Amino acid sequence: MRICMIGAGNLATQLSLALSQKGHEIVQVWSQTAHHASDLALKLNCPSTNESEKITDDAQVYLIAIKDEAIVPFLNRHQWDNKLVVHTAGSIPMSTLETKCLNFGVFYPFQTFSKNKKVDFDQIPICIEASSPQNLEILNQLACSLSENINFYNSDQRKQIHLAAVFVNNFVNHFYTIGEEILAEKGIGFEILKPLILETAQKIITQDPQSSQTGPAIRNDQIILNKQLEMLTNRPDLKKIYSLISERIIQTIK
Amino acid sequence: MRICMIGAGNLATQLSLALSQKGHEIVQVWSQTAHHASDLALKLNCPSTNESEKITDDAQVYLIAIKDEAIVPFLNRHQWDNKLVVHTAGSIPMSTLETKCLNFGVFYPFQTFSKNKKVDFDQIPICIEASSPQNLEILNQLACSLSENINFYNSDQRKQIHLAAVFVNNFVNHFYTIGEEILAEKGIGFEILKPLILETAQKIITQDPQSSQTGPAIRNDQIILNKQLEMLTNRPDLKKIYSLISERIIQTIK
Repeated sequence: MRICMIGAGNLATQLSLALSQKGHEIVQVWSQTAHHASDLALKLNCPSTNESEKITDDAQVYLIAIKDEAIVPFLNRHQWDNKLVVHTAGSIPMSTLETKCLNFGVFYPFQTFSKNKKVDFDQIPICIEASSPQNLEILNQLACSLSENINFYNSDQRKQIHLAAVFVNNFVNHFYTIGEEILAEKGIGFEILKPLILETAQKIITQDPQSSQTGPAIRNDQIILNKQLEMLTNRPDLKKIYSLISERIIQTIK
Repeated sequence: MRICMIGAGNLATQLSLALSQKGHEIVQVWSQTAHHASDLALKLNCPSTNESEKITDDAQVYLIAIKDEAIVPFLNRHQWDNKLVVHTAGSIPMSTLETKCLNFGVFYPFQTFSKNKKVDFDQIPICIEASSPQNLEILNQLACSLSENINFYNSDQRKQIHLAAVFVNNFVNHFYTIGEEILAEKGIGFEILKPLILETAQKIITQDPQSSQTGPAIRNDQIILNKQLEMLTNRPDLKKIYSLISERIIQTIK
């Protein structure tokens, strides 16, 4: 398919590289920042622009991978006629595209992306939604060329998936940072945590998380809980988090 | 080495199987619960007992892998003379063994263990500490036969490592459970979160966690933050956790 990529950030980079590798043609990259657009275009060997008037007419799908709050202002800067315009945002309902486009949809690859860490799309869940069965079929073809894991969820469900992601990705990663901080207090490097972090994640592939729960809270081990709270006396922010999560784990004990 | 295994839980099981596989001889398994002891002893093809008077004299190392609070009562039930007695608990200082034993130490494999999920010890950090250089050398030999990752931390540092583990293992796993709960509200299965959970963990192997941080809080994206808080209106416990962690992430923005 002939695709115009709107955006040049982490997701736009990984997605356009993967699509190009699967034989799709990225016909143009647009980004508000000219050198971001040209950096990505160079990797894809295609033209780029930072002017919305110069966006090509010659694409079958316009994939918008820019910041959530930039989507509506961007849409207003161009006439879309009957072009298929698709955003990639978890939390933005499909209806956001309705007033400016005739053909529209959502293409949400559910993963965390870095600009320089190559991602294997094969197993990444892609959530698609479209304004018509015809448009859904186009997005389904596009998604199937990248991944084996296609999901048809509506905007309300997608928003919920995005909320769950904040807990299992953003908050979890922050807990890795907290682990690093706690060790640094006693001159211990982060390295020692890595095997435990990996095993914790790998466990949930074969075991549901509630039955994988270990630690002092699930044993309601008040001696350790109190000792550890005491260790956090000088870290009131961490102490509060420790109490709150431990209490919630204790409540799950049957 | 000739080892007496005190305990038959997750850690005792995995540790004694690994030691046996590396050519050490588990000469006896003790557990308070006779059938737990015999179940593990069957796997190791060795005798077992649940009576503390029947603990063998014929071992070089007595490895205690039982619940933290059971360690002291257990020690009191036997005469240890000059035997090398070693516990495996992160949060218990080595000095706990001092009053009952002449030769003692700590052997702390830093990982999460399940009874039935086999663990590859090669990369697991093992923290050792001992009452004398001679005893430390014995524990070092034992540790080196299992893992390439040996660490010499004292009881105070080990306690800190255990606290960090509660955040990156126990609390992280509870966030996986929260992710499952949030999805279930809209009839979505946990499966969709698995690739994201794995990638989040794998990222920290090559990138430090603070620079890996993504999501609405690190962008200080108040629109999404408020939308997601609103989605949690009927879940005051989750709303509180969401606010607290998001605020802490925002504070890390430079």
